[in-house]
Amino acid sequence: MSHAIGIFDSGVGGLTVYKELARLLPNQNFVYLGDTGRVPYGTKSPATVRRYAREAANFLSRHGVKMLVVACNTASAVALEELRQQFALPVIGVIEPGAERAVTLSKNSRIGVIGTEGTIKSGAYSAAIHRLNPDAAVFSTPCPLFVPLAEEGWAHHRIAHLAAEEYLAPLLAENIDTLVLGCTHYPLLKQTLEQVVGSEVRLVDSAAATAEAVRALLPNDTSPFEKEGRFYVTDVPTRFEQVGSAFLGAPLTCVEQVELA
Amino acid sequence: MSHAIGIFDSGVGGLTVYKELARLLPNQNFVYLGDTGRVPYGTKSPATVRRYAREAANFLSRHGVKMLVVACNTASAVALEELRQQFALPVIGVIEPGAERAVTLSKNSRIGVIGTEGTIKSGAYSAAIHRLNPDAAVFSTPCPLFVPLAEEGWAHHRIAHLAAEEYLAPLLAENIDTLVLGCTHYPLLKQTLEQVVGSEVRLVDSAAATAEAVRALLPNDTSPFEKEGRFYVTDVPTRFEQVGSAFLGAPLTCVEQVELA
Repeated sequence: MSHAIGIFDSGVGGLTVYKELARLLPNQNFVYLGDTGRVPYGTKSPATVRRYAREAANFLSRHGVKMLVVACNTASAVALEELRQQFALPVIGVIEPGAERAVTLSKNSRIGVIGTEGTIKSGAYSAAIHRLNPDAAVFSTPCPLFVPLAEEGWAHHRIAHLAAEEYLAPLLAENIDTLVLGCTHYPLLKQTLEQVVGSEVRLVDSAAATAEAVRALLPNDTSPFEKEGRFYVTDVPTRFEQVGSAFLGAPLTCVEQVELA
Repeated sequence: MSHAIGIFDSGVGGLTVYKELARLLPNQNFVYLGDTGRVPYGTKSPATVRRYAREAANFLSRHGVKMLVVACNTASAVALEELRQQFALPVIGVIEPGAERAVTLSKNSRIGVIGTEGTIKSGAYSAAIHRLNPDAAVFSTPCPLFVPLAEEGWAHHRIAHLAAEEYLAPLLAENIDTLVLGCTHYPLLKQTLEQVVGSEVRLVDSAAATAEAVRALLPNDTSPFEKEGRFYVTDVPTRFEQVGSAFLGAPLTCVEQVELA
């Protein structure tokens, strides 16, 4: 399992990033860790999320991964710098690739960002967008109901539509032309969000942008080991396998429970 | 702090139980522990919830509490027996008092129960109701959106109303006359739930029932120490203080962060 790419998320949501990575990089091995015993991170404090991220990175580092992909937006928002300082590995988060894609796509430089409470409070997307375009206007809001709506299987339900209208109205009033889906669960609500924002607003999926950023770091890597993917979680695997299969659109098995702390 | 009553919850929700206890038992001291670093329990496995409950009980036990109140429905549903075996203290959960109140109130013995995924899957309310009335018909369903709706401050929002209609329709179709609110957050949605179920269905708040069960165990305890309440959490206290003040209807301060594991 050494020389695999390590992917870490608070739970099942990061499988959207894994799915893109596995599609773009079919010759790579992956180790995925979902901290399902302590999910979610989005409502927890930066200090606690940093501690959990450190423990996760330690675990993956012990598995000899060659790179660390922080698939969780909240952990990327508050823990990336610390992880880069503490681990002698390339550490890729989802914020910078998402911000870059948004800046490229936006024509009027008015960009909306939605995410968890932790991600939005951190201001990480706003800072990353302004590093690329200091003149951009960024409008952001947390959408705490989107994750439970996605996990409930209500992504296309009338309730999801109403919640999206409520959350997005202030952003649409600012005439944004680009909206960053700053949480790994949000792509599951893409269809509903498209209906609410209309065809004039482009949606940015950080998962796809992140997978491309990872590929850019591994351009000539064509010497795969025997193809293998491993999944670890910190709660019993049952729910991760169930919800994760829906995320991946394929059965998820051989998930193993581990202890981090 | 010895001889205090220990109260434990996955987070802030158990403050509804604390509030009732403090009102009914003004001469008692309380130590409250909210496991905010790992909240919620409702979507986690019984094995993991049992481990967390054990760690919480250990912490309160070291504080010399004379009784342990498990204010969390999910932990009461899956961990109560184990806690009773492992700790030489009276251990009171919220399930039995809620079930007893429901059986007393119901005239047609058709009782609805709502709660987290973990609580409903455990069948604990159904079992407790049947121990008291083997002929009762129990209809239950998990309502995963109610906690985020309550924490979002949308308890009286149209979205909460729609979610309640969706969740409760199958129970109302079974002609229930009593509905157990089997999660500490749900009393915050009481007004919305009353509108959806109508005046023919009685709502049972486990918090109030549990506080009365605790009082029944302490009938003649009238020698209070200097009045004191302590609150411990496993994430930084900021959010617990904010949300908790709304739960209590009074400012919540002096909350201290601790490590359990």
